[in-house]
Amino acid sequence: MTGVAIVGASGYASRELIRILLGHPGAKVTVATSRQDEGTRVDSLHPSLARRIDLSCEPFDAERLAERAQVAFLGLPHTASMAVTPALREQGVRVIDLSADYRLTDPTVYADWYGHEHTDLDGLRTAVYGLPELYRERIPAATLIANPGCYTSTSILGLAPLIAENLIERTGIIIDAKSGVTGAGRAPKPNLHFPEVNENFSAYNVGRHRHTPEIDQVLTDVGRVDGAPVEVVFTPHLVPMDRGILATIYATPRKPAAEHDLMDLYRDFYARSPFVRVVGGLPATKDSAYTNFFDVTVRIVRGKIVVIACLDNLLKGAAGVAVQNFNLMFGHAETTALL
Amino acid sequence: MTGVAIVGASGYASRELIRILLGHPGAKVTVATSRQDEGTRVDSLHPSLARRIDLSCEPFDAERLAERAQVAFLGLPHTASMAVTPALREQGVRVIDLSADYRLTDPTVYADWYGHEHTDLDGLRTAVYGLPELYRERIPAATLIANPGCYTSTSILGLAPLIAENLIERTGIIIDAKSGVTGAGRAPKPNLHFPEVNENFSAYNVGRHRHTPEIDQVLTDVGRVDGAPVEVVFTPHLVPMDRGILATIYATPRKPAAEHDLMDLYRDFYARSPFVRVVGGLPATKDSAYTNFFDVTVRIVRGKIVVIACLDNLLKGAAGVAVQNFNLMFGHAETTALL
Amino acid sequence: MTGVAIVGASGYASRELIRILLGHPGAKVTVATSRQDEGTRVDSLHPSLARRIDLSCEPFDAERLAERAQVAFLGLPHTASMAVTPALREQGVRVIDLSADYRLTDPTVYADWYGHEHTDLDGLRTAVYGLPELYRERIPAATLIANPGCYTSTSILGLAPLIAENLIERTGIIIDAKSGVTGAGRAPKPNLHFPEVNENFSAYNVGRHRHTPEIDQVLTDVGRVDGAPVEVVFTPHLVPMDRGILATIYATPRKPAAEHDLMDLYRDFYARSPFVRVVGGLPATKDSAYTNFFDVTVRIVRGKIVVIACLDNLLKGAAGVAVQNFNLMFGHAETTALL
Amino acid sequence: MTGVAIVGASGYASRELIRILLGHPGAKVTVATSRQDEGTRVDSLHPSLARRIDLSCEPFDAERLAERAQVAFLGLPHTASMAVTPALREQGVRVIDLSADYRLTDPTVYADWYGHEHTDLDGLRTAVYGLPELYRERIPAATLIANPGCYTSTSILGLAPLIAENLIERTGIIIDAKSGVTGAGRAPKPNLHFPEVNENFSAYNVGRHRHTPEIDQVLTDVGRVDGAPVEVVFTPHLVPMDRGILATIYATPRKPAAEHDLMDLYRDFYARSPFVRVVGGLPATKDSAYTNFFDVTVRIVRGKIVVIACLDNLLKGAAGVAVQNFNLMFGHAETTALL
Repeated sequence: MTGVAIVGASGYASRELIRILLGHPGAKVTVATSRQDEGTRVDSLHPSLARRIDLSCEPFDAERLAERAQVAFLGLPHTASMAVTPALREQGVRVIDLSADYRLTDPTVYADWYGHEHTDLDGLRTAVYGLPELYRERIPAATLIANPGCYTSTSILGLAPLIAENLIERTGIIIDAKSGVTGAGRAPKPNLHFPEVNENFSAYNVGRHRHTPEIDQVLTDVGRVDGAPVEVVFTPHLVPMDRGILATIYATPRKPAAEHDLMDLYRDFYARSPFVRVVGGLPATKDSAYTNFFDVTVRIVRGKIVVIACLDNLLKGAAGVAVQNFNLMFGHAETTALL
Repeated sequence: MTGVAIVGASGYASRELIRILLGHPGAKVTVATSRQDEGTRVDSLHPSLARRIDLSCEPFDAERLAERAQVAFLGLPHTASMAVTPALREQGVRVIDLSADYRLTDPTVYADWYGHEHTDLDGLRTAVYGLPELYRERIPAATLIANPGCYTSTSILGLAPLIAENLIERTGIIIDAKSGVTGAGRAPKPNLHFPEVNENFSAYNVGRHRHTPEIDQVLTDVGRVDGAPVEVVFTPHLVPMDRGILATIYATPRKPAAEHDLMDLYRDFYARSPFVRVVGGLPATKDSAYTNFFDVTVRIVRGKIVVIACLDNLLKGAAGVAVQNFNLMFGHAETTALL
Repeated sequence: MTGVAIVGASGYASRELIRILLGHPGAKVTVATSRQDEGTRVDSLHPSLARRIDLSCEPFDAERLAERAQVAFLGLPHTASMAVTPALREQGVRVIDLSADYRLTDPTVYADWYGHEHTDLDGLRTAVYGLPELYRERIPAATLIANPGCYTSTSILGLAPLIAENLIERTGIIIDAKSGVTGAGRAPKPNLHFPEVNENFSAYNVGRHRHTPEIDQVLTDVGRVDGAPVEVVFTPHLVPMDRGILATIYATPRKPAAEHDLMDLYRDFYARSPFVRVVGGLPATKDSAYTNFFDVTVRIVRGKIVVIACLDNLLKGAAGVAVQNFNLMFGHAETTALL
Repeated sequence: MTGVAIVGASGYASRELIRILLGHPGAKVTVATSRQDEGTRVDSLHPSLARRIDLSCEPFDAERLAERAQVAFLGLPHTASMAVTPALREQGVRVIDLSADYRLTDPTVYADWYGHEHTDLDGLRTAVYGLPELYRERIPAATLIANPGCYTSTSILGLAPLIAENLIERTGIIIDAKSGVTGAGRAPKPNLHFPEVNENFSAYNVGRHRHTPEIDQVLTDVGRVDGAPVEVVFTPHLVPMDRGILATIYATPRKPAAEHDLMDLYRDFYARSPFVRVVGGLPATKDSAYTNFFDVTVRIVRGKIVVIACLDNLLKGAAGVAVQNFNLMFGHAETTALL
């Protein structure tokens, strides 16, 4: 039984983490921390967990945490994660960080997009990008996992087979992405106030969403050709619903392609991935909601390749993939507690 | 043409007021004030009004306001209204107050429920309760209108015929009310954050919602019998939608009653009221949404009288009835700009 | 391992049943039947189950079913259930019926409310009402379970402690209930068309919803006093959301009561029930959604007892309680696969 | 006063037409027809219109209609419109057809996409495409208006300035469009059943939506260069909300362009169009919902031109633009009854 700490327990992804881990035969949540909710019971923060967990939030203390936990999931905002990670690793606690702090390998890119210098370059060098479908073999030995962003996973998994096989142009890829509102976190903001979001649909952060460099970086790593990096045009939109991200991706094939060949390619590429479903119909967010599945299909429309991909942003896009990483790190079947 | 000031222009009811008045042949919005948004254009606060109004928010100044406006609609929180009303009235500006400050005739009841002493007793004595269906004849001469609450109007209009005719027991009346989220205002709060409200239904303020004494007071005024006040059990609930209040009201008849007689009673009682629709079917909030109508029907179930009543909380429950009052005060047809 | 048949596999409750049973260590879904979808794969009917179940719908045949299943869950409309149950029981298959066919013990009441004669009086005499919180000891030996209605469970569990202790008047009990739309089933209807329900709130079937006699009957059984039956005024409403029922219940105490005593009573009454949560705050449907919990609290408002109770209509109100019954019938821990 | 007939009165667009025309000083709805609802009062079909209109649906009869109406709005499905239009025109009734029947100028393209031969080629030759922003001068004299599709108007108005000025490549234009559910009509269907759409987001008809050839045709007409037709990749999606279409459009500039120049171009192009708002911020559907405005902005992202455009599908996308056409045809100010 592995002792687990949830650092930053008040958010939606942390609630999902706790809920999943309550059904995990090899994990026990022994520590929950929260700055703003110190002393509050976890089931007061998350009433849906009433009767299921008897734990209160404590202030973060790496040493005391390490006495009870071998792994810490960080549900913290960016910069807060890199502030606590070194201390945890010093105590021998393995870290699965759900923030963006260890995702961008180049600290100057991080500084550009997040507006802060990176303060844990050692951690940054060590971190493994926690997308099991691409980096499954590196994860078991990892001591620090950079858990991927939700838009990022949708986009990368949707494009990886095409990029890996060098089938599409590497620039001018359009990712038109649509997300439910839990992806924006639990803190109330004017633009997330119910009457502002409800019955509304809009784009936001056009041309400057922070998941853009993350998508570029990982896809470039998946298949760099002649030194040319991948460069995507990424447009996020807000959908008036709780959960789910759907990306409609438009790519230009390097040579004419047939739909069924592309579908075969996707099936082969993800043959070992238990949470990828290459579906014949058009995926809908509701079919993957409340699951850890990533659903994808491919079409050709007037010469463009159109990929439609979706997942649950809180599960496959955050807490679910985090547990997938945990499973790989601690020797459990990849699907444990996730089906 | 009457010059109109919108004092506190940033809220939802104020936006609806402006939108309605833009189509009013006898009114022109000449002043908009806002403390937190001083200098901001009204159509920046409310992008739906783009291209429709060329006005910026100014700080509140009764004297300067009075140069351009003969009437002020107050879209302010309680206590803020009674802070500005005396100065406006001193300048000869008539006031239609959408807050609760002048609704409760007894200042000790106000202090009990709102937690503040009332600071404008003179205004309180002068104020006319702005529910035209009950007080139509008092409104034309009013200089200060206490515009009723949204739950209140639904409940009172739903019960007034029964109380006026002394057909039901005066205590133990159950008002089970359900409201869309715009009723809670535009300020972001944790419990109004989209993912908290969406796909959720809950009661709140059980036994202690501030519209309770307002309902009691007005219904007691409608029909006091042997000195006995009306006393309601009022339970508000939040519905994951923008607009609309529906109240399901349960009353005990003093003697057996027939459904069709009650329906006739309602039709007669509201014969002169152009915005009341006594409907045969079961009213649904969507049929009155975006209108100034109040829809109501009556049923008898196992000896109880069940009244089902609904309206749009921002219109008939706030901005619409405010314009109805304006029309009566300034000699326009009651329905002007409201159909 | 118990072989399980899902008879009528295309509805929402059946989908939830299959999903739950996929995680049950002692059950295996071996048969799925559907009249209109014969030959269709279960994961075509329910794309969320893709990659999880490899089964196609077959026509109903009791004999062939009995070769592979020891128990059948019936997700059929009323009258269809009593048409297949005798054949199943003849084959020794135990039946958990999610329809209304075996809930009303008096066949004349059934005929009155459902408009059909009851055709399986033998089954009716044998059936056990499947509400474990009240009839836990009768369920293990049952061969035919009448799984309770969703409104019914919410209402009965909300009132049972008060009725059992004879603390409230038995008539004039108001149950104002609100339900998400999955409760109305999967068949498209004009009134369930998205733009008709969305952003709308309304009452329906006022005074004539078929769950009324079921509530009366069970509560009368819980605590008949001097031969007086319980008689409730039940008003259902439709909430624009997927899941959840919340009932606000108003009862008249026979003598003055204190809130904390009532809360203690509820805690005691449900002390052995792992899926009942007596909560201090006001329950919200979202906290019990996607769980098998029933949440309840009690307040006193102006002399009335106000009970607020909620559950997920597809789980604790249908598929979840059905598995709870299955667990009790087949010797599993009551919570197996449900936490 | 112009007598108006609503042919096919039961749909959402017809309801909006009636509502708008009730506030029009120069129009009176004198006829409403409906095949399936013959004899039904209009306010029974549309309870929101209760107390506002005293008219019942009659069967379609061109001669009797012509006695009371000078213009007919057709709210009919495709093929039904071209079945009644010749008779109306024979009677001298001008026609504004909201279906697709007269939008595609080439009858073979119509037959290809709609699966029916066109049966009114004379009407087809006569019809004027009713998009006032592009064809304002042709509309006043028109006797038959092909009212544009909702997706179509959003896409065409979003691209017209770029195409007219020959600033972008004519093929490979990506239109990623998202629509509220009223766009799919009022007839209940499995995929529009509330629990299927709610909390869901999906693409549909990828590569084969019938608005595609309409967009191609009109944009080609706006600016054909060297005989090259415009060819768009159009992907529609369904958003869980009532109203609004937002299109995110990606185009490749023929030479480098600056954002502010493009914004100026849009402002100039639409300077005479009272219902086009070129906005600095990112448009959101809710700001144009319940209005006749089309909102648009332009961005440049990594060398691509990104246009974001939205409108209310039932108003600017259907009933509103129809009244705009009516105003131009009958000599009213273009904005009459629409602000």
